[in-house]
Amino acid sequence: MIEDKNQGRTSLSELGEFGLITHLTKAFKIKQPSTVKGIGDDAAVMSFKNKQVVLTTDMLIEQVHFDLSYMPLKHLGYKAVMVNLSDVYAMNAEATQITVSVAVSNRFSLEALEALYSGIETAARIYGVDVVGGDTTSSVSGLVISITAVGEVDADRVVYRSGAKPNDLLVVSGDLGGAYMGLQVLEREKAVFKVNPQSQPDLDAYTYIIERQLKPEARKDVVTLLRDLDVKPTSMIDISDGLSSEVIHLCKQSDVGVELYENKIPLDPQVIATCEEFDIDSTTVALNGGEDYELLLTVDQNDYPKIKGNPNLTVIGFVKDKSQGMHLITRGEQAIPLIAKGWNALKED
Amino acid sequence: MIEDKNQGRTSLSELGEFGLITHLTKAFKIKQPSTVKGIGDDAAVMSFKNKQVVLTTDMLIEQVHFDLSYMPLKHLGYKAVMVNLSDVYAMNAEATQITVSVAVSNRFSLEALEALYSGIETAARIYGVDVVGGDTTSSVSGLVISITAVGEVDADRVVYRSGAKPNDLLVVSGDLGGAYMGLQVLEREKAVFKVNPQSQPDLDAYTYIIERQLKPEARKDVVTLLRDLDVKPTSMIDISDGLSSEVIHLCKQSDVGVELYENKIPLDPQVIATCEEFDIDSTTVALNGGEDYELLLTVDQNDYPKIKGNPNLTVIGFVKDKSQGMHLITRGEQAIPLIAKGWNALKED
Repeated sequence: MIEDKNQGRTSLSELGEFGLITHLTKAFKIKQPSTVKGIGDDAAVMSFKNKQVVLTTDMLIEQVHFDLSYMPLKHLGYKAVMVNLSDVYAMNAEATQITVSVAVSNRFSLEALEALYSGIETAARIYGVDVVGGDTTSSVSGLVISITAVGEVDADRVVYRSGAKPNDLLVVSGDLGGAYMGLQVLEREKAVFKVNPQSQPDLDAYTYIIERQLKPEARKDVVTLLRDLDVKPTSMIDISDGLSSEVIHLCKQSDVGVELYENKIPLDPQVIATCEEFDIDSTTVALNGGEDYELLLTVDQNDYPKIKGNPNLTVIGFVKDKSQGMHLITRGEQAIPLIAKGWNALKED
Repeated sequence: MIEDKNQGRTSLSELGEFGLITHLTKAFKIKQPSTVKGIGDDAAVMSFKNKQVVLTTDMLIEQVHFDLSYMPLKHLGYKAVMVNLSDVYAMNAEATQITVSVAVSNRFSLEALEALYSGIETAARIYGVDVVGGDTTSSVSGLVISITAVGEVDADRVVYRSGAKPNDLLVVSGDLGGAYMGLQVLEREKAVFKVNPQSQPDLDAYTYIIERQLKPEARKDVVTLLRDLDVKPTSMIDISDGLSSEVIHLCKQSDVGVELYENKIPLDPQVIATCEEFDIDSTTVALNGGEDYELLLTVDQNDYPKIKGNPNLTVIGFVKDKSQGMHLITRGEQAIPLIAKGWNALKED
């Protein structure tokens, strides 16, 4: 689990800035028909014809968004791409291009950067996006990754956060809380490793939730599924900060209320078992644990037959009139006001 | 010159992440017809119809790309936008949107971030670009700014680095070396200030070169001028790393050689005077000093009458066959091979 930092080391300065970029990006292939010119000029050039273009950007900072003591660099590269693609899919768009900027200190070897870019390349290849630009520069301290993602969508297919209306179904893809509980397990193992570096962790019982934390997948498949089912959500958002926070975003921007049913929230058995082991309430984890990168959407009731029984989609509540507020309906049928306790990147450190 | 860090301080954590972004971006206005949806959803949405889209990104890191001891935050915000727009203009495109990601440690107050965003807003307003996305997050150490710029251009107007051909004129906008010499003056004053904090620097003799360093302007006007003159360059690049490095880029990507005339390189009198004062060769400064953000272009000889005598454009050489190599022709008519010594962000620190 702990990365071996003593592999072959090549100093970054041996290659120089341009040599380094050329070396790291040589595996990137251009496949999107919209890419006219990729890496190698002052800017990339793209042609989207009559499609609308979506654009999103996210920056990941060492010790704030990730911890290299249990996050392998290849996984980090993969995850950094997923975080951005997830925002593109949340617009109901197809992701087409990304740019990647990386700042590293000289404590990173060329081999370490190669691992990072290998994860980026793998993600780009699997999800069919072209890497069309970016830069690699030095940092005086930690690793910084900034990715910008571009997507395309027909104007009549784009889905905003603001279109939910009373009586719509509240729907979520996949299951929730896994990434957060995976993080708890990894943090525990890190603490054990500090005390006893000879310990051999047995992580078999946590493979799913650790993968949810270290190698999340953006739900491209859900965008495809919705198109195949002929369902256009009335609103959509990706779940990066926890279900509660995202439900509140949708409601506020759509000017509606909501009833969310505790007993409908999809949880993997591994999440439930690990919550019991850690003595944490699984509903709290689903509501406030971040980084699941599932999609939260609202769907017109007339579309219910199209999504009913689909294993990728779970109806977890109903959109209400704004005057009815935003509530969690507990297993005991109590209505508790929803509050956003999601992860806050600007809390005091 | 040295920023007063003891102004009113509001802790960043008082606002929280979403409150902070809303607060910092409230002055941003949407004006570009291509912007469909700006800040506030998972991604921005744009519509470019039959135009091609250019995309470029740059990351600026404290202590690597800037020093806050003499760079006021408002200027830094402005410059960060310029660095990116310059790449858009180098494609002969019109800049239309930017996204802005900022990472700060808690040593920054709200007022400091407001100054940074004020510079970004000023640049966006003056250059007519919409700020359509981005994020603000925490950093464990220094300030990181990552900006992505989007532009639009008719497919038949886009200019790459690769189109130069033998006998084309090598042309540069503005004058060179100013930003580098401005940095030398600022570094000297910083050293003096460390020894004697009471010293009052007299910078009147350096106003132009200090402004070139602290508040550069991207050459949007040159793109407009070229269109008005009905000149489409055969190749173009922006000068961020020094003339020598950029000439070599153009030649390599166009598969040509070049003769660059030392006595034609445009230098401001303040650059010449300051070079004499610092006992530095002004040609070396123009060739290797970075951050001028001028445009370097090649123009067909048939277009010479259109650009002749224009005060914004200087012919500094000729494109040659690749076999003739890349040379600087000195005042003494010696031919010296061009080498790239430009600023290297990955040198050993």
